[in-house]
Amino acid sequence: MARHAIGLDIGGTKVAGAVVADDGTVVAELTEPTPETSDSATMSALLLRMTETLRTKKPEVEAIGVGAAGTVEWPSGRILWAPNNSYRDWDIRSELESATGLPAVVDNDANVAGLAEALLGDTLYREMVLITVGTGVGSGIVLGGQIYRGPRGFAAELGHIVVDPAGPRCGCGKRGCLEAVASGSALTRTGREAAAADPDGVIASLARERGVPVNGQIVTEAAQAGDPTAVALFQTLARWLGIGIATVTTIFELDAVVIGGGVVETGDLLLTPAREAAAEFAYAPQVRPLPPVLPSTFGSDAGKIGAALLALS
Amino acid sequence: MARHAIGLDIGGTKVAGAVVADDGTVVAELTEPTPETSDSATMSALLLRMTETLRTKKPEVEAIGVGAAGTVEWPSGRILWAPNNSYRDWDIRSELESATGLPAVVDNDANVAGLAEALLGDTLYREMVLITVGTGVGSGIVLGGQIYRGPRGFAAELGHIVVDPAGPRCGCGKRGCLEAVASGSALTRTGREAAAADPDGVIASLARERGVPVNGQIVTEAAQAGDPTAVALFQTLARWLGIGIATVTTIFELDAVVIGGGVVETGDLLLTPAREAAAEFAYAPQVRPLPPVLPSTFGSDAGKIGAALLALS
Repeated sequence: MARHAIGLDIGGTKVAGAVVADDGTVVAELTEPTPETSDSATMSALLLRMTETLRTKKPEVEAIGVGAAGTVEWPSGRILWAPNNSYRDWDIRSELESATGLPAVVDNDANVAGLAEALLGDTLYREMVLITVGTGVGSGIVLGGQIYRGPRGFAAELGHIVVDPAGPRCGCGKRGCLEAVASGSALTRTGREAAAADPDGVIASLARERGVPVNGQIVTEAAQAGDPTAVALFQTLARWLGIGIATVTTIFELDAVVIGGGVVETGDLLLTPAREAAAEFAYAPQVRPLPPVLPSTFGSDAGKIGAALLALS
Repeated sequence: MARHAIGLDIGGTKVAGAVVADDGTVVAELTEPTPETSDSATMSALLLRMTETLRTKKPEVEAIGVGAAGTVEWPSGRILWAPNNSYRDWDIRSELESATGLPAVVDNDANVAGLAEALLGDTLYREMVLITVGTGVGSGIVLGGQIYRGPRGFAAELGHIVVDPAGPRCGCGKRGCLEAVASGSALTRTGREAAAADPDGVIASLARERGVPVNGQIVTEAAQAGDPTAVALFQTLARWLGIGIATVTTIFELDAVVIGGGVVETGDLLLTPAREAAAEFAYAPQVRPLPPVLPSTFGSDAGKIGAALLALS
């Protein structure tokens, strides 16, 4: 008989929750916006409310899994810090366990998403890296079929490897990060520069039409409509992503690199130039073939599914 | 009672061999230059000769360990390819076993050196990366007290992570590699550029005096003598090394980063600017403190000691 767990995925803009079966089937789901004041107390109240609602849909759930943006101490489940949420030193694991009487696990959001992609995706991957390209760049590293976290959970921050030391400043405060050049935020920055340089161009016009400031989404739409400026910005982002992929495959020996996050919804617009750059910068491909670079199977559902999967494991 | 193994370290310029006790003590040693024709047959004959000589010094040796420059398939011990030696698809493990009747293991040279530094260095490190800065840049990654190789032994090529995509071409053929900017070869290249730009400078003069072309060693001597040009070249190399260290600590969670190889013999000339750059580019140091960046304990002996240690494990 199928076993079930609640999976919760805490992001910068929303909290996604679901009851998930051990084969990855989503039995019930629920999404809430992340409160503006994303401090520990507010977030705890929200998570408990969501947990209770989901539990009524499937009372036999046996565990709770949480994936959270930020630095999560493992196995304690204490969330130390997050770049885009204000919770700090948040002992959410204990709070959930004492309030619900269920065992809980708490891990980084991209870690659990990586677990879902590795174990339940179209192909089973024992060695895989998930790179999520959204507002930021997250990552989950799966080695031997298990999440690689380092001893205390602080490993696997691929969004902040150094690919361009002279490049723009990252949201984390330092220069050179993959996230600073290969994320939705990077696309917002380069799109605004392009719009300022060409106020009558497609990017600037599209933003005016929509009544919003230029952002990654506007650049994406302009690129999908074939605007050469927007396509070039996309290719630059994808090239940096490919460079990051090359570094990752030089360090690990992988069955696949899976790309998730909102930006991969553009498909080949992102993946083709990313694959080209990864091949250009791959080490010794004659003896170490570059693994396939593939879009994610679960998209934005990977976090909650992987969180539940981890809770059941 | 101590157990003993033969450790052999195959580099681009020499093959170092030793009888090593399980506490790391070197009981006997022997070094031979790497033959100009470093093909499999020539190298096999040399290794067997060295093994027989070492075995006469300690007849009770119970195993042979080999660390070799290049891409080594694990656990088969087949050496597929090496950037600086001409052996290819070399099944040295079987050859040694059938010729000597002893069990043998064959691994990448920096992997076994990393093992020696992690387990037998001044401090026991369960999670550690060794970066060797010599003619090239090698690396050994130790996680949970064991060498991390990836499933087939092709992982951990930190010399070829991408740190400067627009930078000089690496010996491996691609651009951007750490090895292309943070190795003895890089120092040779930048030293020659400096000598060409200033034929009366200390670097050019020192090379003339010695009757050799400018190389990394000449630049090192000039830097140690305080020549500002040479010191600046050293600082540039060290800065790239620090950037590579930052990336490694962002991916792994480490107790230490140990720097080995010939260039670290310059001590603080390399380590001080490398540590500064690593701190500048480290991710979220407020929650993920940068591990110490230390010189190696065993220096150029680490390879043969680690190879023997692996054979005994």
